[in-house]
Amino acid sequence: MALRTPPAAPAGDLTLLNPGPGLVVLEPQRAALLLALDDLFTDLAAEVGAPAVVGPPLLPAEGLARLDYFRNFPHLGVTAARFPDDAVEALASGAPVAKQPVRPTGYLLPSATCYGLLLSLAGQDVGPGLRLTAIGRCFRNEEHYDGLRRLWGFHMREVVYFGTAEGAREHLARSKEFIETLAGRLGIELSYQPANDPFFDKSGSRAKLMALDPVKHEFVATDGTAVASVNRHRNFFGERLGITGEGAVAHSSCTAFGVERWVHAMVLAHGTPEEALRQVRDVRGC
Amino acid sequence: MALRTPPAAPAGDLTLLNPGPGLVVLEPQRAALLLALDDLFTDLAAEVGAPAVVGPPLLPAEGLARLDYFRNFPHLGVTAARFPDDAVEALASGAPVAKQPVRPTGYLLPSATCYGLLLSLAGQDVGPGLRLTAIGRCFRNEEHYDGLRRLWGFHMREVVYFGTAEGAREHLARSKEFIETLAGRLGIELSYQPANDPFFDKSGSRAKLMALDPVKHEFVATDGTAVASVNRHRNFFGERLGITGEGAVAHSSCTAFGVERWVHAMVLAHGTPEEALRQVRDVRGC
Repeated sequence: MALRTPPAAPAGDLTLLNPGPGLVVLEPQRAALLLALDDLFTDLAAEVGAPAVVGPPLLPAEGLARLDYFRNFPHLGVTAARFPDDAVEALASGAPVAKQPVRPTGYLLPSATCYGLLLSLAGQDVGPGLRLTAIGRCFRNEEHYDGLRRLWGFHMREVVYFGTAEGAREHLARSKEFIETLAGRLGIELSYQPANDPFFDKSGSRAKLMALDPVKHEFVATDGTAVASVNRHRNFFGERLGITGEGAVAHSSCTAFGVERWVHAMVLAHGTPEEALRQVRDVRGC
Repeated sequence: MALRTPPAAPAGDLTLLNPGPGLVVLEPQRAALLLALDDLFTDLAAEVGAPAVVGPPLLPAEGLARLDYFRNFPHLGVTAARFPDDAVEALASGAPVAKQPVRPTGYLLPSATCYGLLLSLAGQDVGPGLRLTAIGRCFRNEEHYDGLRRLWGFHMREVVYFGTAEGAREHLARSKEFIETLAGRLGIELSYQPANDPFFDKSGSRAKLMALDPVKHEFVATDGTAVASVNRHRNFFGERLGITGEGAVAHSSCTAFGVERWVHAMVLAHGTPEEALRQVRDVRGC
């Protein structure tokens, strides 16, 4: 390139304002941490032979309803909505946006990355077994937000397995080993604990069943932040969505990484974003 | 890792279902194309010294209103909405989701990546000049959708400049040269054309002004798909948001890449995703 331009001021001098509760803009160092950490998570996908796909940006409400999503998590979902025609006309004439109604589109923002992958496999046969990985932006309504620990919108990387019960269990065992080894190399201390999904009705039967026979375990940092989880679905999604493995109802399991939470945990463990980034780059070998 | 797992079926044998109009799931080859192409776009950012940030996942409606967004593009925006408390209770008891009302949250899904970056710099001084880059998922309501050419939700990479009028012009000239060189190496034929933003009122004064003195130019593939654009903002955003450069109202400009559209253009030019991927990998040198 022949054109010369005077050097720009480094972005490090600036404050990038966050737009609202639970929403952040990541300045260059934390952005670099997010990208570098996700790159390390993809090593798990490479190890287990999970090709990367790009999941859908929105999920059909009817599809989620098939999975009892609204019975279990009606409070979580952020829906995609539109201004009706009269509101569009009013806005074009300068009416205030805060006063305009919105109508549902029939779609929601994902609250976990695996839903989009599960729905995309409805009615399919996965043969002896299938693994996929994807990263997506997820959204969850929360009672309160807290820095990078608890966000309204955040990145979730998942590595998902479909196939046999044995394969589903093995996927999670392998994932657990990967996460514990990675955390050790990154200098983060994690404890492995059974957990509950964030049910709306915490005293309901499904929540009680999960507490008795946990299908979800989390990896928890020293300040109580759950940074990753391994989730055993049994054959629930296979049954609801007609996903089979060589003709039998498919079992599935997934491993999830809350990427901003790992950024948080790294800065917590190492003191500054610079130190955290140095550590991640050492582990990556670059 | 000591655990051995039987190999999974390659995902190439499967059909990954798209969830609805304008929404796609990218199978492994197109996913790889998306990632590899975006990696090439980041070369422009590296060349011009634009560090990567991660923009916010949602934008405040009030912030967009300051930019006349709803006067100009009231039809485009996909809003983030929530179920009110009575709907949450109803859903928990099994009521159908299609019948539930939703309420605005005061936030929208981005329809372009630069808005989040612009809003994050409100009231800031960028010194002699500043460049940033980010990729984000964007959403636009359209009259019709069409494969990867026209999506409801898609990825947009932007490289944005803030500072002087001369710097803003030079940013776009450099971007144009980069895009034309890259397209040549990738074997895509693009034509450079003035364009209009998708105003709601196409006969309105702002649309007419843009037609007379275009501030937007597009790079258009042989089938008419605009895959990238260079946009001159003059000092509009600087003035509306109180962004200054060494005390003077900042000028800005941005270069945008519609990443799925480049995937589309590559497959169009090279025949199959496999050939397209081979071409991209040759250019990347890996």
